[in-house]
Amino acid sequence: MTVTETQVTLIQIDNYGPWTVSPTPRREPDLQTLQSRLYADLSQLVAHDGGYVFSTRFDNMIAVTNGIDLSGHRRIQAAVRNRYPVTVSLGVATGSSPREAVGEATATLQAAGSAQDSDRTEILRGEPLCEDGTVQIAHFDVNDATGQYTDELNAFDVFRHIDRGYSALLEYMYDAHDSLSFFIGGDNVISVTPGLDRAAFAETIEHVEEAAGIELKVGVGRDLTAGDAGMAAKEALERCRNRGTRVEIGTGESAGRA
Amino acid sequence: MTVTETQVTLIQIDNYGPWTVSPTPRREPDLQTLQSRLYADLSQLVAHDGGYVFSTRFDNMIAVTNGIDLSGHRRIQAAVRNRYPVTVSLGVATGSSPREAVGEATATLQAAGSAQDSDRTEILRGEPLCEDGTVQIAHFDVNDATGQYTDELNAFDVFRHIDRGYSALLEYMYDAHDSLSFFIGGDNVISVTPGLDRAAFAETIEHVEEAAGIELKVGVGRDLTAGDAGMAAKEALERCRNRGTRVEIGTGESAGRA
Amino acid sequence: MTVTETQVTLIQIDNYGPWTVSPTPRREPDLQTLQSRLYADLSQLVAHDGGYVFSTRFDNMIAVTNGIDLSGHRRIQAAVRNRYPVTVSLGVATGSSPREAVGEATATLQAAGSAQDSDRTEILRGEPLCEDGTVQIAHFDVNDATGQYTDELNAFDVFRHIDRGYSALLEYMYDAHDSLSFFIGGDNVISVTPGLDRAAFAETIEHVEEAAGIELKVGVGRDLTAGDAGMAAKEALERCRNRGTRVEIGTGESAGRA
Amino acid sequence: MTVTETQVTLIQIDNYGPWTVSPTPRREPDLQTLQSRLYADLSQLVAHDGGYVFSTRFDNMIAVTNGIDLSGHRRIQAAVRNRYPVTVSLGVATGSSPREAVGEATATLQAAGSAQDSDRTEILRGEPLCEDGTVQIAHFDVNDATGQYTDELNAFDVFRHIDRGYSALLEYMYDAHDSLSFFIGGDNVISVTPGLDRAAFAETIEHVEEAAGIELKVGVGRDLTAGDAGMAAKEALERCRNRGTRVEIGTGESAGRA
Repeated sequence: MTVTETQVTLIQIDNYGPWTVSPTPRREPDLQTLQSRLYADLSQLVAHDGGYVFSTRFDNMIAVTNGIDLSGHRRIQAAVRNRYPVTVSLGVATGSSPREAVGEATATLQAAGSAQDSDRTEILRGEPLCEDGTVQIAHFDVNDATGQYTDELNAFDVFRHIDRGYSALLEYMYDAHDSLSFFIGGDNVISVTPGLDRAAFAETIEHVEEAAGIELKVGVGRDLTAGDAGMAAKEALERCRNRGTRVEIGTGESAGRA
Repeated sequence: MTVTETQVTLIQIDNYGPWTVSPTPRREPDLQTLQSRLYADLSQLVAHDGGYVFSTRFDNMIAVTNGIDLSGHRRIQAAVRNRYPVTVSLGVATGSSPREAVGEATATLQAAGSAQDSDRTEILRGEPLCEDGTVQIAHFDVNDATGQYTDELNAFDVFRHIDRGYSALLEYMYDAHDSLSFFIGGDNVISVTPGLDRAAFAETIEHVEEAAGIELKVGVGRDLTAGDAGMAAKEALERCRNRGTRVEIGTGESAGRA
Repeated sequence: MTVTETQVTLIQIDNYGPWTVSPTPRREPDLQTLQSRLYADLSQLVAHDGGYVFSTRFDNMIAVTNGIDLSGHRRIQAAVRNRYPVTVSLGVATGSSPREAVGEATATLQAAGSAQDSDRTEILRGEPLCEDGTVQIAHFDVNDATGQYTDELNAFDVFRHIDRGYSALLEYMYDAHDSLSFFIGGDNVISVTPGLDRAAFAETIEHVEEAAGIELKVGVGRDLTAGDAGMAAKEALERCRNRGTRVEIGTGESAGRA
Repeated sequence: MTVTETQVTLIQIDNYGPWTVSPTPRREPDLQTLQSRLYADLSQLVAHDGGYVFSTRFDNMIAVTNGIDLSGHRRIQAAVRNRYPVTVSLGVATGSSPREAVGEATATLQAAGSAQDSDRTEILRGEPLCEDGTVQIAHFDVNDATGQYTDELNAFDVFRHIDRGYSALLEYMYDAHDSLSFFIGGDNVISVTPGLDRAAFAETIEHVEEAAGIELKVGVGRDLTAGDAGMAAKEALERCRNRGTRVEIGTGESAGRA
């Protein structure tokens, strides 16, 4: 396998803040509908070419786009323009660490102007990977979250516990491993990591348990695209469930887009 | 105005965890699409009757549903069943504090069985408000988030800062004021609060600034439904922007569903 | 029951034709996505207040909106504006016949300017019903369409047969009874009719059988809203299936929005 | 260029009729929402691989899928299963005429059982094209539809005129040229044709004008996929508008997926 090389795309809704209150504040449920549908569409558009998108702040989303070239990015911009009352700008960059890649992706977009500059629309900047690199995806979940939390505590307390565990994981993975971690619903977190090994994941799980009292397990996959690596990670996580283990690393060969 | 009495509905996807890996793990982008579309639909369904839904954990969502009776809740269940491959159970409760209401709404659902019991589907339990109570909604955002963060830091660092501010706010509002707070995208957080006054909000903002280094402002609205209270809150937040103030409390009379 | 009085709303996408080719032709699948999602949303928005929308030409849709006032119509316009790259104009009118109502609804919109006038956007004109009138909905389907057609002929030939039956029904119901008929998928057609009786429906079915060789049955419902009348019609159609009859007329009392 | 060889996929919702009335009739607006969203999703899924889908009867849809292999078809089935309460079966076939292809695609699905057999779900049968063939797409619209119809007649009368023109075109293209024609909204019809020449299109337009009194123009494109051929057709139709001509045939080279 080739080296780990993550391609990141920053997706930014153009001049969104001013739009939400123009000419007067728009109804919040309509904004929530717009944001979540746009995220759903971007998930599909990016997934079709093998990528993963994370909702992040909703008006600024981070995607792992290994394998998607500039014309693929342009198709995404056109699809948004043709269906929504807003447009998106895209910054693309690669790096041996995800942190480096998101830094560069952001910088290239910031260089084009402010996110609230009404003249800065539908920017597409950056340089997709020329050669194949592998991406590593880690899929975490909480051990027996339903039995320990959902069926026991009030729903907001459960959310707080999950959120604390996520925050602890996010900070540690970023500071110690230059990784980006995203809550994806339920008790699930996906981390985009450089080529971390089993020991690094075991250590991370221990850290979160100490810091936030949450017990995690993780499945890890590597492949040429986030989609294939992510599916390998999910299959590895199933092996954790079946075997009672805390870290499983997938070969990636079993991952096919199905 | 009548006393603050918040009606909360816990929306739980039935037996969702097992479904996501049955018979083998489903593709993550399809799950993200399902979850975010379901949230978008619930936003609309609940908003039409005056409520607000928060995405929370996506498989467990918390809604403020003052003014929606049991038949309204049944319509929501039917709409989900008719459009999605999953169904939802609903627990409804009221309380003078949102914390009390979510506790009771959760308990009534937990009493019907586990969230992962395949026989426990489409439960509807609880007692909506018989008489009108007012709901108070507080809409926070970060001062000059674009200038200070979005245009300056890398997108993941911005997200971390916003997330830290949100966590600090969430914890303080819950512990000190029995309030529920939800990140709704961008740099925005909505809190569902009992009848807090201006001093309580000013103190909260100071606390978050000290704890997380994030400067907030807040617009507050009260009305018979979350929709009207939320719109009053957004208009109050606009007044903060125009006047340079940190707390504005709306009269609610200006709030009409438009 | 009160007299039959149909309220019709013409929903017209503003200046849509020019938009679809501006600055160059947009991809057809994106336009299809936009149109069908907009129709889905309008279905829900209008249904929530008791109405029915028909996709008609997609850029011009006809809705039965008994019970929806001008502020309800304004909410629909705002919802579209907040989620789509296009806006809609609405013309509302009532009449003892649906034909009369659609004529007046169209005229009131045409008086405001051309559908392709870029300055004529988000018009809302007309006068909703002040008093309650009942609406009558007839739901037709083809006898044993699956056995006779879908499982026997090629899919396009099936479509041709269904389309011919629909065209024959549409023309006859319009010319003989001032009714509006809409294909709604599968082998189903809904007609919005003035207060036709059993004999008129029996005669209509005979006419379509002679003209197009298609055997229909019909369930009919009357109620204060299209939603309730339509549900009564569907239940009546089920009685046709169970009893082997060709015309069943519902009392309407059984219709509740569920 | 290679010979015209159309690949057609019949998309059939499994056992849909019984589902719509089980256990009691489902609300019609929810069914309309389901059908139109499913069509929107299929448009995107198929378009991403270069195909076009037509809504046809909504529970039976016809797609032109040149370039999409069996694994692409399986991905479409999985996407539907993961997002909707229904599943789809697919029959795939090719032919030098579209009529032949749809006949074979239907037959292969019918051979697997009835559309209303509850045990016949998620069938995938047929053989995609091994070698590249070109597909020809013709995009028709009505001359000055807004000026002559939309701004002049009542909205239902406009719809009747457009529908009559469409029916005349559909029948003629099928009987004379083994072509499949689909109304796609507004005043637009797309025909999937074998390699017809300019004279055949001019003659078709004359026929429709005589039979239904509707004046059409048409842009025609040929390429390896429906998406590229369709975009070439749209660009050719723009040339009709600019030059005042009635038939323009695109080279196809200008068509790129943008």
